[in-house]
Amino acid sequence: MATKWWGWGDESKSFAPADPERFWSFVERRLGGAGESPRLESVDEIRLPPSRLDAGVAAALRRAAGENAVSVDSGDRAVHSLGKGYRDLVRIRRGEITRPVDAVVYAESDAQVAAVLEAAARAGVAVIPFGGGTSVVGGVEPVGEGTAVTLDLAHMGRVLDIDDTSGLATVEAGMFGPALEARLNAAGFTLGHFPQSFEYSTVGGWIATRSAGQNSTRYGKIEDNVESVRMLFPGGAIDTPAVPAAAAGPDLNQVIAGSEGALGVITRATLRLAPLPQQSDYRAYLMRSFEEGTEASREMLQAGLRPAVLRLSDEPESEATALMQAGVEGMTMCLCIVGFDGDEDEVRFSWQRAEAILGRHGGQSLGTGPGEAWRRSRFEAPYLRDVLLDRAIMVDTLETATTWSNYLKLYRSVRDAMQNAMGDRGLVMAHLSHAYTHGASVYYTFLARQHEGREMEQWQEVKDAASRAIIEGGGALSHHHGIGTEHRRWLRDYLGDGGMKVLRALKQAFDPQGIMNPAKLISTEETQDV
Amino acid sequence: MATKWWGWGDESKSFAPADPERFWSFVERRLGGAGESPRLESVDEIRLPPSRLDAGVAAALRRAAGENAVSVDSGDRAVHSLGKGYRDLVRIRRGEITRPVDAVVYAESDAQVAAVLEAAARAGVAVIPFGGGTSVVGGVEPVGEGTAVTLDLAHMGRVLDIDDTSGLATVEAGMFGPALEARLNAAGFTLGHFPQSFEYSTVGGWIATRSAGQNSTRYGKIEDNVESVRMLFPGGAIDTPAVPAAAAGPDLNQVIAGSEGALGVITRATLRLAPLPQQSDYRAYLMRSFEEGTEASREMLQAGLRPAVLRLSDEPESEATALMQAGVEGMTMCLCIVGFDGDEDEVRFSWQRAEAILGRHGGQSLGTGPGEAWRRSRFEAPYLRDVLLDRAIMVDTLETATTWSNYLKLYRSVRDAMQNAMGDRGLVMAHLSHAYTHGASVYYTFLARQHEGREMEQWQEVKDAASRAIIEGGGALSHHHGIGTEHRRWLRDYLGDGGMKVLRALKQAFDPQGIMNPAKLISTEETQDV
Repeated sequence: MATKWWGWGDESKSFAPADPERFWSFVERRLGGAGESPRLESVDEIRLPPSRLDAGVAAALRRAAGENAVSVDSGDRAVHSLGKGYRDLVRIRRGEITRPVDAVVYAESDAQVAAVLEAAARAGVAVIPFGGGTSVVGGVEPVGEGTAVTLDLAHMGRVLDIDDTSGLATVEAGMFGPALEARLNAAGFTLGHFPQSFEYSTVGGWIATRSAGQNSTRYGKIEDNVESVRMLFPGGAIDTPAVPAAAAGPDLNQVIAGSEGALGVITRATLRLAPLPQQSDYRAYLMRSFEEGTEASREMLQAGLRPAVLRLSDEPESEATALMQAGVEGMTMCLCIVGFDGDEDEVRFSWQRAEAILGRHGGQSLGTGPGEAWRRSRFEAPYLRDVLLDRAIMVDTLETATTWSNYLKLYRSVRDAMQNAMGDRGLVMAHLSHAYTHGASVYYTFLARQHEGREMEQWQEVKDAASRAIIEGGGALSHHHGIGTEHRRWLRDYLGDGGMKVLRALKQAFDPQGIMNPAKLISTEETQDV
Repeated sequence: MATKWWGWGDESKSFAPADPERFWSFVERRLGGAGESPRLESVDEIRLPPSRLDAGVAAALRRAAGENAVSVDSGDRAVHSLGKGYRDLVRIRRGEITRPVDAVVYAESDAQVAAVLEAAARAGVAVIPFGGGTSVVGGVEPVGEGTAVTLDLAHMGRVLDIDDTSGLATVEAGMFGPALEARLNAAGFTLGHFPQSFEYSTVGGWIATRSAGQNSTRYGKIEDNVESVRMLFPGGAIDTPAVPAAAAGPDLNQVIAGSEGALGVITRATLRLAPLPQQSDYRAYLMRSFEEGTEASREMLQAGLRPAVLRLSDEPESEATALMQAGVEGMTMCLCIVGFDGDEDEVRFSWQRAEAILGRHGGQSLGTGPGEAWRRSRFEAPYLRDVLLDRAIMVDTLETATTWSNYLKLYRSVRDAMQNAMGDRGLVMAHLSHAYTHGASVYYTFLARQHEGREMEQWQEVKDAASRAIIEGGGALSHHHGIGTEHRRWLRDYLGDGGMKVLRALKQAFDPQGIMNPAKLISTEETQDV
């Protein structure tokens, strides 16, 4: 299976709307038409600035990771220099990579990772840890002027241990979602972690970014399922104690989760598993409004229900979904997917309670069909982005989270800020997902016809408007995408000086030389206390 | 209600075994007899070294916190210089407080706390934050040579906000358990946090030590229920974002939780609440062995059950409990208390599943009587300690946690290490509580006749043996008591150099002068990187 250098996922896959004619006519009407945005034919056409990797450093890296472990191939460098966000795809489709990494180093063991860090530290070369490279916030992109190498962990994908009694698996950080789930399922377990990037992202990347899967309402975010973790940093390593809970100072797992490669390289983790559910019963409901659906969602969570999936689309997203997936136009209600995992009794008991709540809030059941359809196509949405990009349409997503009492207010203010930034011809749609007893996340998708020649500025205007509204509205700067480069300018406003102090202290302690994923999360310049 | 300066809780309360004659005859037989250990008649008899608080500093502290806010009264200083652990009670009963705090400062607001920290920093005076003072690991005890003041937050006990929609309460750190629950219950909520110290401990103390309540299996440890927290430190403050989850670097709540006053003073928190349960159905079972009971506990948790209480006593603890509470001698089975909270359907559904599992492992139901009896007396055990101390019996508790696969091995190795340290005339008993899908905690109580004149050494031998066995056996150094002074010597072995690096970095960032609760968690000397 070859993956697209210029877009998402498998080269042979695309996304076909149920009724293409209606779909494109909607796009025409709603966004003011689509255009065309050509891309290079082949990754080989990309002309990169030459690698600045010094021959002596290259030799040291080869001694560290193996004779064939260091690549300065232009295609390798290109695809490792960007993630899979909108800004990334706009640039790589045109081959506009002005600041590529200087080499890619493939490590196969902890010893090799440690040796690579040692060689890089000696040479003052930056190291960007890389799992699946699916960051949508610029997390794997080199920043700054110095020489930088990507450290690709995709060859570190072994399951080291499955503890059946405790329900724990120790795995290497470079393990991808499907291989991990296959191994766990065979042992009767699931991690229950299914981010949209599931097929192309890794355990290490999940932990480094505090990823959330589509089933997080039941199974938790990835950081909830880290029993222990190993992180190698220049000159040392940290192995957190593998215990279910402790009272021994700050929780080190929660210091390393979210560290985005800026403190060190996560090389392995012991993950908390759940029994593989005997049943999964996913159903769709129509709610009369996003407000009513939100209220029903809150009630379900506060009644103790933990649906594996709870996904409530607002009116615009429901309309677009019905059109894309069923060719149905003019939907005005809100689509809500609810799914329970568990054994037969548990699923039945949960559904009894959920149905009562959904019904009380005017929910109309659509049965299991649309729920199962969503489930089958759960990883497909990013393919649509490639199709839209081909037609010169800007499309990106962003997300936040807040308390229930603030939920609708934040939902509206961020939506309105984005809409204002894009004007009438922009489309903002959203859904509620990743719900908690005390709040939930909002996930936005925004689309507009590209402003040719100022695609980046156009995008930045929307992003700035959304981020400002999120900060001012008391939302999480990100719920599960991370900080990367795209959220960094807002981080101080979000965390405050006290919070930045923690980041600076950690950066100074683990990476005083500033070689770990520079300028991500915290930049070396900021490690000087103010 | 007056509290005991020389022991636990309410002065008017004591603990009477069901059949005193049988009880003391058991003690005689098992521990080789009880003796007598007199205590001072009054706190006024305690002769403390004079306060070294400089008059200028005292004036500055009064300017910071109010004219009547600074006490150098000998009784005040005495009771604030120690917690409520065995070592503490041995010393205070005799008035042997060689290193008391030099003053007690009572703050009533964040502004006063900030001003006190500023005055202390200017004078280089150590500040020990103090909530209820119930630490059993030496967490509030002054260490070292410099002048030290206790900062008592007991007057900061207001509920600032209850967010009914989200199920969140913002409260000041000095709020005590009963007042908090009363307010929450009136609003239809519970925090579900009932540590044994519940009546005499505070929100700030819970968070600072990562406390666990007796209902933590359902409601979580305190750190799981912190939506946000404010910590004042010398020269600044940190307010963590109040969001249900985020992907914006390390989790700051989990950096502050467990900080034990060594980084700053927690002054308020927004806590995640649960609906007040409509029903609580607590029952007792007899299990044929601790091993079978452990297996049943694991199965219940892994089947998704979340009992509010799950407490499985081993054979010695079951024997002692039956004797104490019912006057029954010679019990050889294991007592297991299981309780579910929720609405009627939920409790019934949970019990159906739990009964099947308990039955499959040979459990015999004792009905609701003993479960309710346990519940009524859930905060009473510390009173027994005072009675035993009067009779010259060493009694203390310690706890750890580990994965299910390691559970029985660790349980035995720690028990055996303690038994060896005490010899045949020592008694070690334990229970499983605070269970998780992936493991559980073990809580030990150990008793022996005091070795007169070397009480501290005798205790230290048991503590060292237990701690070594915990570290070597892969257990948590503490599950919910914290580090304080008593676990500090083991912290490096537990966290490793990488983990200590985090503590050093945080100490250096928040308290470079080293005035915050010196030598707790991390000492100033250790902040120099090795």
